[in-house]
Amino acid sequence: MLTDFGIVDDFAGICHAVLATHAPGAPVIALTHGVEPHNIVQGAVLLRHSVNFLPPNAVVLAVVDPGVGTDRRPIAARTSDGRYYVGPDNGLLAPALEAAGGATHVVRIMSDDIILRPTSATFHGRDVFAPAAAHLAAGGELSDLGPDLDAATLTPIELPQLRHENDHLIATVWHLDRFGNMSLNIDEAGFNEAFGEATHEIELAVRHDRFYASVRRTFADVSAGALLLYPDPYGSMSIAINQGDAADMFRLKPGSEVGMRQAASVATDVAAMATRAMHPQGS
Amino acid sequence: MLTDFGIVDDFAGICHAVLATHAPGAPVIALTHGVEPHNIVQGAVLLRHSVNFLPPNAVVLAVVDPGVGTDRRPIAARTSDGRYYVGPDNGLLAPALEAAGGATHVVRIMSDDIILRPTSATFHGRDVFAPAAAHLAAGGELSDLGPDLDAATLTPIELPQLRHENDHLIATVWHLDRFGNMSLNIDEAGFNEAFGEATHEIELAVRHDRFYASVRRTFADVSAGALLLYPDPYGSMSIAINQGDAADMFRLKPGSEVGMRQAASVATDVAAMATRAMHPQGS
Amino acid sequence: MLTDFGIVDDFAGICHAVLATHAPGAPVIALTHGVEPHNIVQGAVLLRHSVNFLPPNAVVLAVVDPGVGTDRRPIAARTSDGRYYVGPDNGLLAPALEAAGGATHVVRIMSDDIILRPTSATFHGRDVFAPAAAHLAAGGELSDLGPDLDAATLTPIELPQLRHENDHLIATVWHLDRFGNMSLNIDEAGFNEAFGEATHEIELAVRHDRFYASVRRTFADVSAGALLLYPDPYGSMSIAINQGDAADMFRLKPGSEVGMRQAASVATDVAAMATRAMHPQGS
Repeated sequence: MLTDFGIVDDFAGICHAVLATHAPGAPVIALTHGVEPHNIVQGAVLLRHSVNFLPPNAVVLAVVDPGVGTDRRPIAARTSDGRYYVGPDNGLLAPALEAAGGATHVVRIMSDDIILRPTSATFHGRDVFAPAAAHLAAGGELSDLGPDLDAATLTPIELPQLRHENDHLIATVWHLDRFGNMSLNIDEAGFNEAFGEATHEIELAVRHDRFYASVRRTFADVSAGALLLYPDPYGSMSIAINQGDAADMFRLKPGSEVGMRQAASVATDVAAMATRAMHPQGS
Repeated sequence: MLTDFGIVDDFAGICHAVLATHAPGAPVIALTHGVEPHNIVQGAVLLRHSVNFLPPNAVVLAVVDPGVGTDRRPIAARTSDGRYYVGPDNGLLAPALEAAGGATHVVRIMSDDIILRPTSATFHGRDVFAPAAAHLAAGGELSDLGPDLDAATLTPIELPQLRHENDHLIATVWHLDRFGNMSLNIDEAGFNEAFGEATHEIELAVRHDRFYASVRRTFADVSAGALLLYPDPYGSMSIAINQGDAADMFRLKPGSEVGMRQAASVATDVAAMATRAMHPQGS
Repeated sequence: MLTDFGIVDDFAGICHAVLATHAPGAPVIALTHGVEPHNIVQGAVLLRHSVNFLPPNAVVLAVVDPGVGTDRRPIAARTSDGRYYVGPDNGLLAPALEAAGGATHVVRIMSDDIILRPTSATFHGRDVFAPAAAHLAAGGELSDLGPDLDAATLTPIELPQLRHENDHLIATVWHLDRFGNMSLNIDEAGFNEAFGEATHEIELAVRHDRFYASVRRTFADVSAGALLLYPDPYGSMSIAINQGDAADMFRLKPGSEVGMRQAASVATDVAAMATRAMHPQGS
């Protein structure tokens, strides 16, 4: 399960109860219920991160569903690795399906034998998606859930793209974790391509401020309180402060942008500025 | 399990460990540990909401227990549907038991064979309720837990009642969910009886302010940022803002009151006021 | 599992997925994921509190790991009660191991057959500790994980010690729970030794303020809003307010100090002060 339900309410618990009722004995893993409410991009990224670590026969139940009760389609999909994905067709599942090589079979969940009645207009997690996931977890057929859909018609997701602005590469914060580490939409390979593997220091531009981050492997590679840029456990480059909270310092949130350029060029700039400062009439 | 333990501390985890020790193999569902501390009414309402979705042989362990260590009775009850309920006799279980047609057998948990020793004075969740629930989940008899109680002597719960004040129906907020939706103590049938099924707009009176909510089925039936009143997935009428946070806007909490009247009658009043304003000496 | 991962991110969920992949069918108990980030002392104390209540064959997976990716050792240990403990060798496991009579066999987790590849530098919970715990939970041998370590070389933990200052006993707050109860680093026996079992009132010194707490067994033994000192369910003395939130009132956090002395001696002081106040020229 991956949802934006939180765990203060009973939404996640009731979905778990529905799973336990209709697929007794199937263990349930809460990947997280902490996706920001309605944040489909964040949910899609976290789900994509998780799928490499799921059991081989996993049925993924993912619900971040601001369009619940509208005509967005409830879907269930199988991938060639034998896993199933259940959730709204709003892009949430797209990166995970793509990472698994695409869906080999997709259906629209419509079966009156599966969907709970009366069906609420605002809680399809409980009434539509959990019973469908339970059906699959209990060994049921995908085709029992409803009619086939063409995988090519599934809603794609628009993920934030890297872009260049002046001499900066502009990245977007995917996710802030509990420790204040900020994950960016650039992976290690992309980073090396942009800056070279030998880069040891990056200038970060956040709003009107400039910060310097060391490029390292782990937190303790820099001194306490120092800024680093490191390949995080999901392969994205992340910004962190050793024993500190980078998100709190930068006051960024998912979707915020961060500029990056090699600190070397900055050093040159700084030298140039210093030169100008010393010879104010010159240059 | 449904408790007010939160999940930052290890209270819920230790109760889970006690269940796993004394009923190995019995799956555990956390309905929620997020009940507001000591809020028996909220816990009772959430539990009542959940019971329709529990597995048929569920043992409910519910702990919201401000009177722990006093002479309030620890109880276990069976209902005619074969489920068990374990918790303090302080009204927490009452709505769920009533919804299941009442308890058919109730005992006071007293057995030295069940209760963990030494027994803390402040954590009966761990020492009294979890071992009792585990005993039942492992197939043990209710009568092993302690002497019978007369179900008629169980502590009732005082739920907030609807009332009329001038031309408003005054409802009480049961619960604020993660999305800021505010659940009221009036169900769809009661709402239709009070206002008629054809009502499309309701005036909400919150403190000294007036707001207008459309009566709809789901969030996306109104435009982003607009207020709606809808039958929530538990059958209560709830106040929401499409893609917004109503609780944050209204600054209400569980127990707060909201006045409601048909927007039509308001329109009439407004017209009357306008008439008075135009003819101040008149009427 | 006991970690500082929180449950907003997917860290805990992914570790759960790794456990489910490598030890299918083994039930997973989240003791808590709410340890304060990087707070090894708090994690160690909570783990020590929990171990008495774990199933007999439990494999404990504990991760509070600010030194992840450095040369701190990843370890797995068996205790004479047949349980296993897996986590970083940074003191986190030390109190629990000591409570179980010490580790009888310890290894350094190094096996390429166990550790997930590629291994992240910052998420050994997922790549090192969870697979090792799963191996043990699935019935695997401790010696499969890596070479033996001398238990005497394990990193100890420095827990805050009680100390005396003037006529106060200075205790440290271990933990603030959800209800605002503050657990101190003194157990009931130590308290009775310091103050005598007959003590009914204690003066608490917090910063420059003085408060009076009744020594009682449970919250309802004092009136609503009154302060009490009670032996908590883990055997530590805790400070609470009946139906209130002591942590919020005192604005303390884990690691804060609280002075304690018998209120009787205070009463004498107060009498003396009153005497002085009445005879300002005297004494």
